[in-house]
Amino acid sequence: MKIHDREGTINPTRIRIVLAEKRLGDRIEFVSVDIISAEQKSATFLAKNPIGKIPLLELDDGTIISESTAITEYLDNLDGNPTLTGKTPREKALIHMWQRRAEQLLLEPVDDYFHYGTKGLGEALQPFRMPDWAGRKEWGERRGAFAVGNLPYLDTELAGRAFLAGDAFSMADITLFVALAFAELAGLSIPPDLANLATWRGRVANLPAVKNRSGQNLRPEDLARLAA
Amino acid sequence: MKIHDREGTINPTRIRIVLAEKRLGDRIEFVSVDIISAEQKSATFLAKNPIGKIPLLELDDGTIISESTAITEYLDNLDGNPTLTGKTPREKALIHMWQRRAEQLLLEPVDDYFHYGTKGLGEALQPFRMPDWAGRKEWGERRGAFAVGNLPYLDTELAGRAFLAGDAFSMADITLFVALAFAELAGLSIPPDLANLATWRGRVANLPAVKNRSGQNLRPEDLARLAA
Repeated sequence: MKIHDREGTINPTRIRIVLAEKRLGDRIEFVSVDIISAEQKSATFLAKNPIGKIPLLELDDGTIISESTAITEYLDNLDGNPTLTGKTPREKALIHMWQRRAEQLLLEPVDDYFHYGTKGLGEALQPFRMPDWAGRKEWGERRGAFAVGNLPYLDTELAGRAFLAGDAFSMADITLFVALAFAELAGLSIPPDLANLATWRGRVANLPAVKNRSGQNLRPEDLARLAA
Repeated sequence: MKIHDREGTINPTRIRIVLAEKRLGDRIEFVSVDIISAEQKSATFLAKNPIGKIPLLELDDGTIISESTAITEYLDNLDGNPTLTGKTPREKALIHMWQRRAEQLLLEPVDDYFHYGTKGLGEALQPFRMPDWAGRKEWGERRGAFAVGNLPYLDTELAGRAFLAGDAFSMADITLFVALAFAELAGLSIPPDLANLATWRGRVANLPAVKNRSGQNLRPEDLARLAA
């Protein structure tokens, strides 16, 4: 299998954590995509993924899988023992619910803030972010405020729970964890008084799949530099 | 089980089709939510779903499941024979990929067009749609144009395929089918020359779960009236 991504960036990090948790790293050939030069919008890449985004999973038979949730479903079910997407109907439902809430309440608005409210990844990607739209900066700033405004709710939900969808670490935690890192890297402030959120974040940060991924770590310095 | 929804509206219709396909209708007690009066934003409803949206699945033990994909995962896996969300890792991945693409390329931008570019569901919901934002109408119109602009790509993908994620009807088809109906109801025009899309749409419309859902049909006249 191949994964087309760029180490240290946002959605690719979700999949790198999945790979570490499922111990699949040595079955993957990584293909680096230069997203600073907008390589993901090139004709060659669009032929693989018309959505123009990374990460992308390419199976040995040539099948292309895009979208982090879809890639996670594939990798988590490969061994017949899904631990990140749930086994029972109730587990599956709660994990997908929280995964999607983490996207809608945090990851997606932070992404909008980063790409519209700031300089984002720089000049090469600007043509793909409605540069002719006068309202783009205000839109981005509103989305950033929406993201930060949702954090107290997420903090409340995490009270008394080990992980976002229940007792076990899941795909939903990965989405929220990476979204929080993205928020900080994009320059949004996470209120320090959200104790449940902070405790949960520390718990996830110390999981082996998150902490000890040799050569596969989330690299804040990369994104901070890119966003500068 | 209870489902909180409003018959004839968009995301609830996705779940009504799932229920018909899985023959679960007689196990469900429906609770009607008056979305025209913004009941989904009331304190009582927000206590059940802090996201303030329908549909909502309430299990007999009180567990609440929101988000159409999560509700579909629950209902489809109840009988141990998932037909709408896939059995193999590859099927699961392709279905989730296409489901998400149908949301991102069509359902979500049409929803933005409807709520920001038109009068949407009327006055009661306006306070929840950034009424103070001068750019809201232009944003909605841009989202509508984005949705329509994605249709030729979806048409191309459907060439030579029976259903969106492969040979079998799945959750991805339900999302795209409902999104197309929403686009038309919201006043967006679907180009008539997209033959693959039209053929696929006719195929889905004639499936028993879509065509013969007694008392559970998608009701364009409802939404058309609401949007007037």
